[in-house]
Amino acid sequence: MAKAQKVQIIPLGGLGEIGKNMTVIRYGDDIVVIDSGLMFPEDDMLGIDLVIPDITYLLENRDLVRAIILTHGHEDHIGALPYVMKQLTNVPVYGTRLTLGILNGRLKENGVSANGLIPIKSGDQIQLGSFQVGFIRVSHSIADAVAIYLKTPVGTIVHSGDFKFDQTPVDGKVTDFHKFAELGDQGVLVLLADSTNAERSGFTLSERTVGAVFDEAFRKAKERIIVASFSSNVHRIQQAIDSACKCKRKVAVIGRSMINVVGIALELGYLDVPEGVIIDIDEINNYPPSSIVILTTGSQGEPMSALTRMAMSDHKKVEIMPGDTVIISATPIPGNEKMVARTVDYLFRQGADVIYEKSSGVHVSGHASQDELRLLHNLIRPKFFIPVHGEYRHLKKHAKIAQEIGLPKENIFIAENGHVLEFGPDKGAIVSKVTAGRVLVDGLGVGDVGNIVLRDRKQLSQDGILVVVLTMDKQRACLVAGPDIVSRGFVYVRESEQLMDEAKERVKQALDKCELNQITEWATIKSNVRDSLGKYLYEKTRRRPMILPIIMEV
Amino acid sequence: MAKAQKVQIIPLGGLGEIGKNMTVIRYGDDIVVIDSGLMFPEDDMLGIDLVIPDITYLLENRDLVRAIILTHGHEDHIGALPYVMKQLTNVPVYGTRLTLGILNGRLKENGVSANGLIPIKSGDQIQLGSFQVGFIRVSHSIADAVAIYLKTPVGTIVHSGDFKFDQTPVDGKVTDFHKFAELGDQGVLVLLADSTNAERSGFTLSERTVGAVFDEAFRKAKERIIVASFSSNVHRIQQAIDSACKCKRKVAVIGRSMINVVGIALELGYLDVPEGVIIDIDEINNYPPSSIVILTTGSQGEPMSALTRMAMSDHKKVEIMPGDTVIISATPIPGNEKMVARTVDYLFRQGADVIYEKSSGVHVSGHASQDELRLLHNLIRPKFFIPVHGEYRHLKKHAKIAQEIGLPKENIFIAENGHVLEFGPDKGAIVSKVTAGRVLVDGLGVGDVGNIVLRDRKQLSQDGILVVVLTMDKQRACLVAGPDIVSRGFVYVRESEQLMDEAKERVKQALDKCELNQITEWATIKSNVRDSLGKYLYEKTRRRPMILPIIMEV
Repeated sequence: MAKAQKVQIIPLGGLGEIGKNMTVIRYGDDIVVIDSGLMFPEDDMLGIDLVIPDITYLLENRDLVRAIILTHGHEDHIGALPYVMKQLTNVPVYGTRLTLGILNGRLKENGVSANGLIPIKSGDQIQLGSFQVGFIRVSHSIADAVAIYLKTPVGTIVHSGDFKFDQTPVDGKVTDFHKFAELGDQGVLVLLADSTNAERSGFTLSERTVGAVFDEAFRKAKERIIVASFSSNVHRIQQAIDSACKCKRKVAVIGRSMINVVGIALELGYLDVPEGVIIDIDEINNYPPSSIVILTTGSQGEPMSALTRMAMSDHKKVEIMPGDTVIISATPIPGNEKMVARTVDYLFRQGADVIYEKSSGVHVSGHASQDELRLLHNLIRPKFFIPVHGEYRHLKKHAKIAQEIGLPKENIFIAENGHVLEFGPDKGAIVSKVTAGRVLVDGLGVGDVGNIVLRDRKQLSQDGILVVVLTMDKQRACLVAGPDIVSRGFVYVRESEQLMDEAKERVKQALDKCELNQITEWATIKSNVRDSLGKYLYEKTRRRPMILPIIMEV
Repeated sequence: MAKAQKVQIIPLGGLGEIGKNMTVIRYGDDIVVIDSGLMFPEDDMLGIDLVIPDITYLLENRDLVRAIILTHGHEDHIGALPYVMKQLTNVPVYGTRLTLGILNGRLKENGVSANGLIPIKSGDQIQLGSFQVGFIRVSHSIADAVAIYLKTPVGTIVHSGDFKFDQTPVDGKVTDFHKFAELGDQGVLVLLADSTNAERSGFTLSERTVGAVFDEAFRKAKERIIVASFSSNVHRIQQAIDSACKCKRKVAVIGRSMINVVGIALELGYLDVPEGVIIDIDEINNYPPSSIVILTTGSQGEPMSALTRMAMSDHKKVEIMPGDTVIISATPIPGNEKMVARTVDYLFRQGADVIYEKSSGVHVSGHASQDELRLLHNLIRPKFFIPVHGEYRHLKKHAKIAQEIGLPKENIFIAENGHVLEFGPDKGAIVSKVTAGRVLVDGLGVGDVGNIVLRDRKQLSQDGILVVVLTMDKQRACLVAGPDIVSRGFVYVRESEQLMDEAKERVKQALDKCELNQITEWATIKSNVRDSLGKYLYEKTRRRPMILPIIMEV
């Protein structure tokens, strides 16, 4: 078939990982990008602040990029935009109002212009090059989330975004099932769908169930109530405020991102709060504890968050008091379990009562479980399916669900970032691979910390470093001063003087050996020193510090 | 009351943490120590291999230590013994046969003599100084676990050890409820009990339920079966072997600790295996895949374990094959979730089917949940209660359980390591504190890595190090050669030459400034260089590498 007859789907992030979601859709000379998220660093990415997708492919085809369209305002969908927009200038970015409101803040922090942000709403349909792009309201753990469909000459592509099927959403705005059904009737070529909860059976509970749990917990609380949740979950915040109003409590908000999001949500009309309910944090002492609810960041035990600082008696404005009821309205993201446990322990030590267990009902997920995924597949009835937004086992389980429903195995693609999936009206295949991967951001540096630097940081973190300084006569290649040995992160020097003295002896022996063998090349001398000293230290300590010989020439 | 009328309980480990359990019981001039465990390092203990309790108190009172008695063979109860026994020589160690069998292996690895290990069994009672010490069979996730009672002139102390109440234990050896009841009848002064699962409602499922799940999973598996579990859980291994026999499969064992424990268990009669069922790993290819079960280590995704190496195609003897059924018969210990997830992903990628979810029933806990704890309290009916073996929230919840059952709040002690709890026949209180805490073991060094070294490793791990070498004239305090700057773990130098050149300039400027102000003290010069360069680098990169100025005098 001629090239113009096929549409290509190229994931640049979000497959085989949870984070940095980014999907390229290409038809001929038109490219549309769905989302540009960041990923939080893995444990072995020492010193790294965040990870963004490698967009080499987009830079190589920059003239074809018609737009970036956003499904919702979570960091793993918009967090890379400040970096992407610096490089792909003049590409319009489409998103719902809350999504763009949150993005606006990010761009400001990064000194990137917010021109080119174009608001859309669910139900809209726009033309982007040869794509007819539409937006379908879905429920998620952030308001104003949409799924996306792209009508192309080859067929229709549906991308679920992050979603769940909440039949009783807090804002009353139910998922647009009718649109999914209509698209399914008309025929969908490819479905890409959220695999996050593909391991979980049944249906995810409605967000509204948390409201009932809040009501009960607030009713029982005798003193002050503190609720920690993800700042982006406006519906959770709404329910906390509703429950506070029911028992006539005032609400104060702390934590930078919580204050930000509540501000944006109030401004854009996503939060409905009666006059006078929200008070400033500085006013809380004007009220009895039993009349106060504090909304805070820190539901993941993040070290700098308001809740963690309060738990460690380190917050300037709020102290935990015995009798406080603290509700941690979240479950730990994998990797954060110990941080959350530590915060919970500190809160208990301060005399608070803490509600945090999964079974308590103070949190529900924002992602569809297996039966909702089946419902989506049954509505959409795609010809081809690409599970997205998951680690390998999530994609695998989601693929199995699709297969069990009736999709032939060869029409299901468990892809990798960078795969080019090409689809005709009746045919689909992974045809090639483009550059894709991780770009590490550390401080102001983007992409300058790679494997070598990380490997060095790893060794330094385990056993520290020994610096061996030798002043050598350039002409005669012999030692003039030293060896001086300075160590950091290796041993407590005051108690290890003997070890250090013997280490110096070893270095001198290595140098003598070099002189004997008439080795004058600095690199070789350093290498010998490194090997000899390394062997000695391992023998004595079973540790392998980095050894850095430095030669000063005189 | 005269001192001889009171008994003291001094926890040296295990309170406010899960790990390094160690409890001192003292009456007059007699000390008995219950357990000597290790703890695995926290994430911020960079480069540390393991953590053991600070036993300063025992060393100060070494002449009073009559014995160390062990509840069971898990690392967090026996892992510190090689270190403790090197310092407390000639102190007998009492334990059940399997416990001592496992300990024997550890002592051998550490070159410590195994003389002084005295086997006991549940039901035994021995005299240790003024203590009458007895051992009560309990169920746990390792065989041959006991609770301990100590009869003193003041009253009886009961320590639960780690336990659950399994009504259908795999080896048929039910907890000795009768002994608990008898002690409760006679009157118990103090109870110390396992708080690990105090957050969980109901009863922990019986170990035997896993056998039924294995039977079903083994029946369904078409090809090879691989079961990963904790090597110390002999009953789990027994059930895997039983299920293998039921479907006429041979069993091979891999992974150093799995091979060790299976060996010890077979030798001591804790495993019952028909002749010819266990084959060597090298023989597995002599059988069709559907006739094989492999028992392996790696249920926590440990990097060097057999399962992880197989998953990453890195094991010399076993490769994962498409069609393999891998059962991860464990749940991730908090902190290990990502490691397990990574291994599961790799196994799926290799084409295995993996059973790992909590809901699958392939693992049950070894610790009592809330209703078992209530049953223990109702049997023992202690006057005083000290929750042990838990982080703060576990101790807090367990204390609440005791209070709800009827123990007065003032008779319940949420203690800390080092607290001296003193009890008379009717009175109990925390009276003082002794030295207690963590000793970090790194390689061969015990206790030589402290806060300063860890803090340095932390900085090195985040932003690396810059070494600035200056050769200075001693007399005139001026620069003779340099500055030479070498960095590791900071930036990729080849792409950052300009930054490094400018850094050298900054150092020169700082030195000029020192000369101008007639600063000749090396320490002050280094300090100025460090500040000036640090400021510059942060400005340019937003990173704070360690800066190490070194002055070579000529």
